[in-house]
Amino acid sequence: MPPIEHLASIPDETLILPPDVSATALREALNQLAKIVGSNNVQVHTKESMKPDDEGHYYNLPKEHDLFYILEKDTFLASGLVAPGSTEEVSQIVKLANKYLVPLWPVSIGRNLGYGGSAPRLRGSIVLDLGARMNKVLDVSVRDCTCLLEPGVSYFALHDYLQKNGFKNLWIDNPDLGGGSVVGNALDRGAGYTPYGEHFSMHCGMEVVLPTGEVMRTGMGSLPGSNTWQTFQYGYGPYPDGIFTQSNYGIVTKMGFWLMPDPGGYQSYLFTFQNDSDLPAIVESVRILRIGMVIQNSPTIRNTLLDAATYGPKSDYTTSEKPLQDSEIDEIANKIKVGRWSLYGAMYGPKPMRDLQWETIKATFMKIPGAKYEFAQPVAEGEKMSVLQMRDETLRGLPNTYELGWLNWTSPRGSLLGFSPISPASGFDANKQYQMVLKRFQEFGFDYLGTFIVGWRELHHIVCLTFDKTNPSERKRAHRCIEALIDDAAAEGYGEYRTHLCYMDQLASAYSWGNGASLKFNEQLKDSLDPNGILAPGKSGVWPARLRGRGFEL
Amino acid sequence: MPPIEHLASIPDETLILPPDVSATALREALNQLAKIVGSNNVQVHTKESMKPDDEGHYYNLPKEHDLFYILEKDTFLASGLVAPGSTEEVSQIVKLANKYLVPLWPVSIGRNLGYGGSAPRLRGSIVLDLGARMNKVLDVSVRDCTCLLEPGVSYFALHDYLQKNGFKNLWIDNPDLGGGSVVGNALDRGAGYTPYGEHFSMHCGMEVVLPTGEVMRTGMGSLPGSNTWQTFQYGYGPYPDGIFTQSNYGIVTKMGFWLMPDPGGYQSYLFTFQNDSDLPAIVESVRILRIGMVIQNSPTIRNTLLDAATYGPKSDYTTSEKPLQDSEIDEIANKIKVGRWSLYGAMYGPKPMRDLQWETIKATFMKIPGAKYEFAQPVAEGEKMSVLQMRDETLRGLPNTYELGWLNWTSPRGSLLGFSPISPASGFDANKQYQMVLKRFQEFGFDYLGTFIVGWRELHHIVCLTFDKTNPSERKRAHRCIEALIDDAAAEGYGEYRTHLCYMDQLASAYSWGNGASLKFNEQLKDSLDPNGILAPGKSGVWPARLRGRGFEL
Ligand SMILES: Cc1cc2nc3c(=O)[nH]c(=O)nc-3n(C[C@H](O)[C@H](O)[C@H](O)COP(=O)(O)OP(=O)(O)OC[C@H]3O[C@@H](n4cnc5c(N)ncnc54)[C@H](O)[C@@H]3O)c2cc1C
Ligand SMILES: Cc1cc2nc3c(=O)[nH]c(=O)nc-3n(C[C@H](O)[C@H](O)[C@H](O)COP(=O)(O)OP(=O)(O)OC[C@H]3O[C@@H](n4cnc5c(N)ncnc54)[C@H](O)[C@@H]3O)c2cc1C
Repeated sequence: MPPIEHLASIPDETLILPPDVSATALREALNQLAKIVGSNNVQVHTKESMKPDDEGHYYNLPKEHDLFYILEKDTFLASGLVAPGSTEEVSQIVKLANKYLVPLWPVSIGRNLGYGGSAPRLRGSIVLDLGARMNKVLDVSVRDCTCLLEPGVSYFALHDYLQKNGFKNLWIDNPDLGGGSVVGNALDRGAGYTPYGEHFSMHCGMEVVLPTGEVMRTGMGSLPGSNTWQTFQYGYGPYPDGIFTQSNYGIVTKMGFWLMPDPGGYQSYLFTFQNDSDLPAIVESVRILRIGMVIQNSPTIRNTLLDAATYGPKSDYTTSEKPLQDSEIDEIANKIKVGRWSLYGAMYGPKPMRDLQWETIKATFMKIPGAKYEFAQPVAEGEKMSVLQMRDETLRGLPNTYELGWLNWTSPRGSLLGFSPISPASGFDANKQYQMVLKRFQEFGFDYLGTFIVGWRELHHIVCLTFDKTNPSERKRAHRCIEALIDDAAAEGYGEYRTHLCYMDQLASAYSWGNGASLKFNEQLKDSLDPNGILAPGKSGVWPARLRGRGFEL
Repeated sequence: MPPIEHLASIPDETLILPPDVSATALREALNQLAKIVGSNNVQVHTKESMKPDDEGHYYNLPKEHDLFYILEKDTFLASGLVAPGSTEEVSQIVKLANKYLVPLWPVSIGRNLGYGGSAPRLRGSIVLDLGARMNKVLDVSVRDCTCLLEPGVSYFALHDYLQKNGFKNLWIDNPDLGGGSVVGNALDRGAGYTPYGEHFSMHCGMEVVLPTGEVMRTGMGSLPGSNTWQTFQYGYGPYPDGIFTQSNYGIVTKMGFWLMPDPGGYQSYLFTFQNDSDLPAIVESVRILRIGMVIQNSPTIRNTLLDAATYGPKSDYTTSEKPLQDSEIDEIANKIKVGRWSLYGAMYGPKPMRDLQWETIKATFMKIPGAKYEFAQPVAEGEKMSVLQMRDETLRGLPNTYELGWLNWTSPRGSLLGFSPISPASGFDANKQYQMVLKRFQEFGFDYLGTFIVGWRELHHIVCLTFDKTNPSERKRAHRCIEALIDDAAAEGYGEYRTHLCYMDQLASAYSWGNGASLKFNEQLKDSLDPNGILAPGKSGVWPARLRGRGFEL
């Protein structure tokens, strides 16, 4: 990572120039940025400075390019990186970017793996690494069970902070991996697995730097001296928070969250189902119990191979390099003692409450022939943890990184591409989706690793395509496979809730009701709020007027 | 209500001209509107055509002016009314309004009583009466427990529809009065009292006509052929729904909602507390149980006089015309067998579950000295219903109008002005708020009628100022009192979640953090989305460029 001092020695042709920006302008911009944040906190990037493939991993994240690149490694390469230390610095950086027309790509921590990591959509953008220095827990209220965070607070850090500062009574909700940003994940509308799993629903209040450098607080934060910024979401008048998610209308520098008080008891559980064909019955039951408030969180219905991958690579199970077939998967399921589908859930509350819930939950799922259930046991010394024991932690908000195993299914230091369509939480749709993906995965030569999650009412289907990025033809197959699937899904009325940089334009065009009214609306807001088009151009398929239709769309 | 046919016979000076619109232009606009919707569905209004005070009431709502006017009766007078029959007609109307610069004030049903009814903020606007003809339940899914509604569907109508069409398993959530619009209430971010009481949180998907006439669908509705419009709120990319609430950026023509499946059991309860000074202890306990998920809904903590007003006017209890004092209130509490504070709540779920909840709830509140509790009994024949019996219906989503009694506390056909600050859900803040309001109410000569409601985490304090609108000096006192209270509240960091037309500008200025950043942002969106400034100018203090700073602010 060349520090800014080397800038003068880098030839013009080597710089990664964003559109409309000359080498001179980029140099000047980077030098000015260094004046704002200090030269330690600015980097310049070139093709040569990209982190080598054998060095980059979850804990050594390249911030200039996508760790799990699918197109070329430098397709989404940043020209530089700047790490602000305060909201005031962010505002100054934004003003400077407007002056030089240098696009900024804000990330909180940048572990958006499967969707592009920390790489910018537009080549040559400068990564605004908010989390590097702005990483404080600003406030915790034990009375209101809320917190106020800077972008750099990870799930690990928040959990630690609560444990160490007398807030053991407050639980957090983390996604599968604990190294992400609480703020960043919520802004991309990610999810976890406790009753507080729908992260955007559970946020309360934002501080936002607008694309012109103005600073705004939303909700009750816009009332001076307010005492309810983290307790009441809306404030007065139009409620804007949603337009700062999956968007490029503002940079969130502070964000409030609700925390779950210790529910007074907890019990995780696992149901295993023997048959591939059990999926519809499982989903039907989860929907009914979930909407009926018997299941309090979003349990996951995982296929055999996802659990298998958590334990170890494919080579631990088979010498086959082809997509595994039914009988092979059955064998693995037997070996690792999970189902063809496994339901990991939990109950929250005092024992007598849970006993009542359990009666219904057990009776419901045990109706499915061949179903078995199990509770997590403490990990015995020297024993390998089971997936149930891992989920037991995740489902009570203990951040971890157990699921990193998925990445390495087919190759060491492997890569993952996420495909995440939404469908009705019906057995019919779950199965249709599953078959749709299976078919394409067979066609393109990938193992299906996936999980179905019932949110408030909808079904999230999370498909993990694992691939070897060092193999160009495998990257290409991965790319074409997901491209085809997005179209397959749209044809059936399914749309992804989030996608990789590669597919942002394709997906934005799929959400085309009323002659593309939604994208037009987004573009109109973009042009009004960001007239110079400097903030995260192309995020979610929204391009600013200056760059629209100039061939940057993919 | 003069139909449009009379237009020609009304002299120019009598027309209620909006700014920048000549009498000729208004006439032309009204005539053109009649071509779009049919002449039956357009009205012209003048001072003379305002519904007489002795005719207007909840079921005979004036739509051209505020039923509970505080300034002059014609201050917020509309120039006309138009009732579209379809989204397509709404779109045409909007295009026409742009052509003639005639402002439109959309209402769903217009029963926004306490906050301005159906009257427009800007005199001379045309009321867009969406609900009159667009009042269908478009879809109900028993699988997903959702519905899709047009603006004219009232709580009564939705409940009826579900009962009559085989959806008895689906509960609705209604506010105190059942005659409002499910869509309109949610767009003003109103609330009810079941676990689904926070109406905007429970909405899913919108169809919106933008101020230029474009039609857009939000969330999954922007995916053609989508099957999850009413189940998944966000869709892909920036999530805009919040900016269409309490705003003037769009006209919502369809809106989806989540419905609660029959929870399998229900029990309402009442705790009465003897002392005025018990309020802090009650609020502290409600907060803990509410955030702790033991109390599943938003119970209300009502003062004696609110309950008294539900039963009958002040004159039923006393000959005093002054604000009642402690001992007088004690007497009334004893007479009608409620507390100085009464907590109305409910439990949802099968009996064994409720028994467990009840143990905790009972133990908690019975700790407060003098507390008593009671369950609702069936109404005996010929007996007057108790407030508990009324709340028993409201808390299980049976729409009703029992609380209309509040209006007539001090005068028959009385009026109500709402004051609704948000504070932390702490005993300290509840009491501070209560004392703040009591003091001003004593000063200005009003009885305090109020209720405290713990939402997800915050405290809604709903104060009902009842007054006699036929008495100009009483109107003036009411006006000054609330004006003073908004400032009192803001000085302590409390802000209202919603307000009457009169105070929209005052409140927007109170939410002034960062040099008025929030209002500036709202104005910027307004100017981008509504360049001619025709949609609901002044709603929530947001004026379009064309009308800003020209003296329309109050
Ligand atoms: C094995 C595996 C399992 C995973 N499991 C889950 C899971 O269970 N749930 C889940 O949700 N995801 C999951 N992911 C995806 C991803 O790792 C997480 O969502 C992660 O939390 C996102 O990275 P981050 O938190 O560092 O956010 P960031 O990368 O910092 O942010 C994400 C995006 O949000 C925007 N953004 C971030 N911060 C700001 C800001 N301050 N202002 C404006 N815009 C901003 C940017 O566009 C950014 O690219 C998984 C990924 C892998 C590889
Ligand atoms: C005694 C009494 C008790 C009350 N109790 C409650 C209570 O418990 N909870 C509560 O929330 N309120 C309460 N209210 C206030 C009010 O009566 C209700 O909120 C009522 O539901 C609002 O009227 P409405 O539903 O007809 O909405 P409307 O009047 O139709 O809409 C409200 C506002 O939203 C906007 N709007 C409406 N429709 C659209 C649209 N389609 N597109 C764009 N903008 C639109 C407009 O600005 C409109 O003025 C009470 C009032 C009284 C007098």
